Amino acid sequence: MNQQIVSNSIREFSQYNRVLEGNKRYVEKKMAIDDQYFKKLSTGQSPKYLLIGCSDSRAPPNELTETDPGEIFIHRNIANLVIPTDLNLNCVIQYAVEHLNIHSIIVMGHTCCGGIKAAMAQDSVGGLLDLWLNQIKIVYEKHQDLIESLENENDKLDCLSQLNVRAQVMNIWKNPIIQKSWQKGNPIMVHGWLFRVETGYIEELLIDSQTPEEMNQVFALKFKLDSERILSKQTTPLGSPKNNARKKFQSMQKQIIQHIKKQKENAGGILKTNDLQQIRESVQNCKEL
Amino acid sequence: MNQQIVSNSIREFSQYNRVLEGNKRYVEKKMAIDDQYFKKLSTGQSPKYLLIGCSDSRAPPNELTETDPGEIFIHRNIANLVIPTDLNLNCVIQYAVEHLNIHSIIVMGHTCCGGIKAAMAQDSVGGLLDLWLNQIKIVYEKHQDLIESLENENDKLDCLSQLNVRAQVMNIWKNPIIQKSWQKGNPIMVHGWLFRVETGYIEELLIDSQTPEEMNQVFALKFKLDSERILSKQTTPLGSPKNNARKKFQSMQKQIIQHIKKQKENAGGILKTNDLQQIRESVQNCKEL
Amino acid sequence: MNQQIVSNSIREFSQYNRVLEGNKRYVEKKMAIDDQYFKKLSTGQSPKYLLIGCSDSRAPPNELTETDPGEIFIHRNIANLVIPTDLNLNCVIQYAVEHLNIHSIIVMGHTCCGGIKAAMAQDSVGGLLDLWLNQIKIVYEKHQDLIESLENENDKLDCLSQLNVRAQVMNIWKNPIIQKSWQKGNPIMVHGWLFRVETGYIEELLIDSQTPEEMNQVFALKFKLDSERILSKQTTPLGSPKNNARKKFQSMQKQIIQHIKKQKENAGGILKTNDLQQIRESVQNCKEL
Amino acid sequence: MNQQIVSNSIREFSQYNRVLEGNKRYVEKKMAIDDQYFKKLSTGQSPKYLLIGCSDSRAPPNELTETDPGEIFIHRNIANLVIPTDLNLNCVIQYAVEHLNIHSIIVMGHTCCGGIKAAMAQDSVGGLLDLWLNQIKIVYEKHQDLIESLENENDKLDCLSQLNVRAQVMNIWKNPIIQKSWQKGNPIMVHGWLFRVETGYIEELLIDSQTPEEMNQVFALKFKLDSERILSKQTTPLGSPKNNARKKFQSMQKQIIQHIKKQKENAGGILKTNDLQQIRESVQNCKEL
Repeated sequence: MNQQIVSNSIREFSQYNRVLEGNKRYVEKKMAIDDQYFKKLSTGQSPKYLLIGCSDSRAPPNELTETDPGEIFIHRNIANLVIPTDLNLNCVIQYAVEHLNIHSIIVMGHTCCGGIKAAMAQDSVGGLLDLWLNQIKIVYEKHQDLIESLENENDKLDCLSQLNVRAQVMNIWKNPIIQKSWQKGNPIMVHGWLFRVETGYIEELLIDSQTPEEMNQVFALKFKLDSERILSKQTTPLGSPKNNARKKFQSMQKQIIQHIKKQKENAGGILKTNDLQQIRESVQNCKEL
Repeated sequence: MNQQIVSNSIREFSQYNRVLEGNKRYVEKKMAIDDQYFKKLSTGQSPKYLLIGCSDSRAPPNELTETDPGEIFIHRNIANLVIPTDLNLNCVIQYAVEHLNIHSIIVMGHTCCGGIKAAMAQDSVGGLLDLWLNQIKIVYEKHQDLIESLENENDKLDCLSQLNVRAQVMNIWKNPIIQKSWQKGNPIMVHGWLFRVETGYIEELLIDSQTPEEMNQVFALKFKLDSERILSKQTTPLGSPKNNARKKFQSMQKQIIQHIKKQKENAGGILKTNDLQQIRESVQNCKEL
Repeated sequence: MNQQIVSNSIREFSQYNRVLEGNKRYVEKKMAIDDQYFKKLSTGQSPKYLLIGCSDSRAPPNELTETDPGEIFIHRNIANLVIPTDLNLNCVIQYAVEHLNIHSIIVMGHTCCGGIKAAMAQDSVGGLLDLWLNQIKIVYEKHQDLIESLENENDKLDCLSQLNVRAQVMNIWKNPIIQKSWQKGNPIMVHGWLFRVETGYIEELLIDSQTPEEMNQVFALKFKLDSERILSKQTTPLGSPKNNARKKFQSMQKQIIQHIKKQKENAGGILKTNDLQQIRESVQNCKEL
Repeated sequence: MNQQIVSNSIREFSQYNRVLEGNKRYVEKKMAIDDQYFKKLSTGQSPKYLLIGCSDSRAPPNELTETDPGEIFIHRNIANLVIPTDLNLNCVIQYAVEHLNIHSIIVMGHTCCGGIKAAMAQDSVGGLLDLWLNQIKIVYEKHQDLIESLENENDKLDCLSQLNVRAQVMNIWKNPIIQKSWQKGNPIMVHGWLFRVETGYIEELLIDSQTPEEMNQVFALKFKLDSERILSKQTTPLGSPKNNARKKFQSMQKQIIQHIKKQKENAGGILKTNDLQQIRESVQNCKEL
């Protein structure tokens, strides 16, 4: 039996070498098309999107969306959680927003998620994971009635996966880095996606609150921006150009959001699930596909 | 100028829609080849590898290695750091090792890394990031002589990228979850990779310590395994079958590691850079390619 | 003006020396009473209590309760928060429960708390603190109606201080280390205290859920204890001695809790504020004292 | 035997009530001396010191230094660690420095420390603690020769306790909040203390680097201060008043530090242990007292 482990382990290792061989094939293919490809890539990155996804091996964002290296800045953790005090993810957000000036943040959850499943069950899955999954249990507790009204066990899981994405999108709005960016005039969009592993399709979730200004004002933060700090020393009167600039900016943001809402409504094939009844239906409809 | 921001923002949004369209194309292609592809995928994951990479948009692990969904469990953060007290990454490790029984952990760094660059410079890059990048500065301090002996600015960065991967690989060996796994009889391999963005190639780094048992014993942890707990109540004498099992296991692990070392030495194209002089040369040779 | 800073700084430093002189006085006093005092102290600690308090300089737990060195194991952070993913506090809990076998955990909040005040206001108080205080904003959102029904600004703050303690007590019950301890047969008690700075008195808060078993079962965790692991291999039938032991233990826990409830009800001077109406009244009554 | 646990638990609970009774005595004593004491205390805090100590029940900072409520802002964790990415402690530092304008930060370690002992041994002490204690093992590895040159087991522990305080003091200097404060003109002092439980005395440790500017410049951070941001828009020439202000400030800081150094050197009874040989001697001398 020990010899079994040894030979298994050695076999695994030769498969591991194939991963590195895959890299050689990849480089050759790319170079055949454009022999300057990697040279160009090495000059810098300017991705438009930050995607926060699950570590699950079945959910690689670039493949699922046929996007190229250079397009999406990516963080992946257990169950795509946005925990306010998580320095790891907050650093990713700070880098993406303040240094890369990304345009959109996407939280991508998925069906058949092991983390969601573990959070719905009661068995301890390990000292560290038990602490991490608490964040999902908070979502479960809040929507316990909805989830437990579903009969099928998989429906319950998929429903929690979806509600979890919504909750983490809200945590992005509450994030001080995002709120500061809006106040400085960079309106970052936040999107919630559910990747349905069983069909391969990504479903965009409609979320009620589209901006930090629509969320519960309990979580709203106000930042003293540099311009205000200078102004405050210069005792600028109300109605001055600086204040007008702020108003203009707010109306500008409204224009953008309204435009996006219209585009989303016209987009075909996107399930619109913005209240609990609709979430319930979306989960059940999906099974009939 | 405000109208500029509005129209920019709207243009960006229509590009965002193209990402979702990419997903539709992807699903259609996969289904054309195997219409049961996603059904099968939804039955579960059993990846062999956990890869800890950088969030950099230019370094998507699956694309670079031509691996499929289902093959690699992935965590990505700023500069592929393994910080001992980071709950986010530790949960990923716990899930990968204790629930998915992965076979190898790969730390993948890359050249042209913004996090490495920021850590080598002195300008503050934001309250949260300054804290995170401290981990790289520790590596920099330790190898300051080597790094500063290089003349070219890019060489310095790439050298720190490489040394950073090595340091994080060592942090994996020190991790209690990995050490426990070895003591239970599951010998997880840990690999360090450097993705050279300018060539596209992934370089495997030879690391001196290949097992938890070879690192400084200051960091070694001993776990009371269940079997020992039971044994200790049954007052098993030394030399009993249980103790023999342990010895057999250790000799088994040695066999695996020796085999892997040989295979690595025979593998072509892998730079062998296991001491500081060699690291220095590898960095400089690379420029000549 | 610069000279002002220099002389201020030097003056502060001489006051700092007085702190060390205070230590000499302290040692002399103690030695005068018992010249073996510190020798004994150095042999080890066996505190019965873990207290989680606020860093506020006005709330030193030992002084406020006239307890001696050796009696209370203490963690203090901004606003006495119990954040599930906070490794710092979780390590304190693990050490206190698993190594010191403490008997009770106390969460002590206080009135006039700067952290609570900052969390109720909207001004950013710094990138790190904004993330930390989010935990209090969650409590505020949940009880927004109650808090905003109060007219006086200080009443609102004190009410949130009290609700915050209750929320953190619940987070202790949800903690895996505490739940595991109960399942192993060590019933740790958890208490919520509010230190009213303006009177000096500590108020014990009655909390509805007195045990992990009374909280929402969404958060309940089940641990495979060693004895069960062994049993499961031995295929023990239901109703066997081991199961009886579990039942006996549960009835034992009930006895302890009922006894404690009675004692608490009989205790004079402890405000009983276990529902929202009572919390409201307790806050207002307090002003009349 | 079950009845034993019940009666033990009930007995413990009645002792717990005595803690609350201690609070009543405390209030009465204070009020007898000054019936406005707590009223005054409730108006606000303005502590001069932030102390980072160990959770150990035998090391309550206010008692040991005979300081009053209102004097020291306090954080206590396992083994008084300053981990760069620990949000909990960093929030305490941010609040103390940026909101309370404290004058000094003290890291207080102690002899007979359970955390230090656990970090020197190899037995796992629990999944979370193993991660936390890694920070001490890093100190141990760095000074392994010195520590292992000592014969007595307790000497080794006390030596690591002392080296651990020094390492954490250095981590304070590296902290971005502290560095920013210095650059803004608030020179915060950082002190390292070792509380010798067996004698009761606190020993101040002499640390080589007294300011952020003396540490390895690898860790130095530069902040764009508001004034510079404004200046940079106004294209101020070199040698302008603003630059002179910076120079004046730096010479001012030097004055303060030199003054403090002199005062420390003149202070009696403070062990001067600023190199490894001296640390070795200080540990051994202490046993002879």
